[in-house]
Amino acid sequence: MSGIRVYLAGPEVFLPDCAQVQQAKRDMCAEYGLIAVVPGDADVADFPTPHEKGLAISARDETLMDGSDAVIANLTPFRGVGADPGTCYELGYMTAQGKPAFGYSNLGQDHRGRIADYYGGRVQADQMGQLRGEDGLAVEDFHMIDNLMLQGGIERRGGAVVSGDVPKRSRFTDLTVFAQILKIAAKKLL
Amino acid sequence: MSGIRVYLAGPEVFLPDCAQVQQAKRDMCAEYGLIAVVPGDADVADFPTPHEKGLAISARDETLMDGSDAVIANLTPFRGVGADPGTCYELGYMTAQGKPAFGYSNLGQDHRGRIADYYGGRVQADQMGQLRGEDGLAVEDFHMIDNLMLQGGIERRGGAVVSGDVPKRSRFTDLTVFAQILKIAAKKLL
Repeated sequence: MSGIRVYLAGPEVFLPDCAQVQQAKRDMCAEYGLIAVVPGDADVADFPTPHEKGLAISARDETLMDGSDAVIANLTPFRGVGADPGTCYELGYMTAQGKPAFGYSNLGQDHRGRIADYYGGRVQADQMGQLRGEDGLAVEDFHMIDNLMLQGGIERRGGAVVSGDVPKRSRFTDLTVFAQILKIAAKKLL
Repeated sequence: MSGIRVYLAGPEVFLPDCAQVQQAKRDMCAEYGLIAVVPGDADVADFPTPHEKGLAISARDETLMDGSDAVIANLTPFRGVGADPGTCYELGYMTAQGKPAFGYSNLGQDHRGRIADYYGGRVQADQMGQLRGEDGLAVEDFHMIDNLMLQGGIERRGGAVVSGDVPKRSRFTDLTVFAQILKIAAKKLL
């Protein structure tokens, strides 16, 4: 056992079968001798208000990240064109600590393509050559899977990003692409 | 002059009038003696590929964050139900460094309300009492403006979150709510 702890950030915490998916990821990590750390590791007690409970979960997850050596983030678009905001926060939290980071998406389409779809294809270059939606907002086109801060933060630290299409109904449960990034991460970390 | 540098994270980098909005924010910070640091501070040279340019912008913005003392993040929902992924990354990047963080949204509606709208109101509690959309994904209900990691990371470090409604057409340019959070931030930081 290497004892290397990998925090598994991702929106699977919102799944009805969260525990099974997390366990499957744990088992896959264990095959490489990596210890998976997942946001659902410890039970959080009840609190007088939902707000206080939210703060307690935030504290717990940050503590889990502080105790982890690397992160693999599931950046699959969540309820819209971009990655889950909580996962993005966690990715930045880990890279700021200088920890190796890896990311994957269960959607093969890149950031630019998804945003163009969001605008129904109505995107065009302005006078400066900057691609924009009809609301005037710039369309990022850096050949990345999401906002450049995410993929940039990963790749600039020697990490990698992998994406690929899985059936839509298993968008958040399919572990094919996760297996690919895990193999890459294990090679780097071990 | 206090010399305190505040990084202004937010999706205004995508605005056609980005420079004017950032300058207005700079001026407002200066009135408190705070030095605004914005993602567009320095020009990034051209690179052989868009991907390399993306990495260069990522490096520059992280350097700007490393040199800042606090962050005010514009968490206004961006192209969907949640905050801009790049802004979320930057918020986590700053809190991981133990820096004071503040957030605001130009949409008063809370996270739960927006997600319920996303599902067309079709959300209901499962057998455990957990609110879920028709796709089975859990609906966070912690009385926060977005994912608990964002607001939790801010509030647990003594920061604050403010939200309020502005006219839709000025969703990303109106600085009324920014003025409110800036006042709170200045009081804490100075």
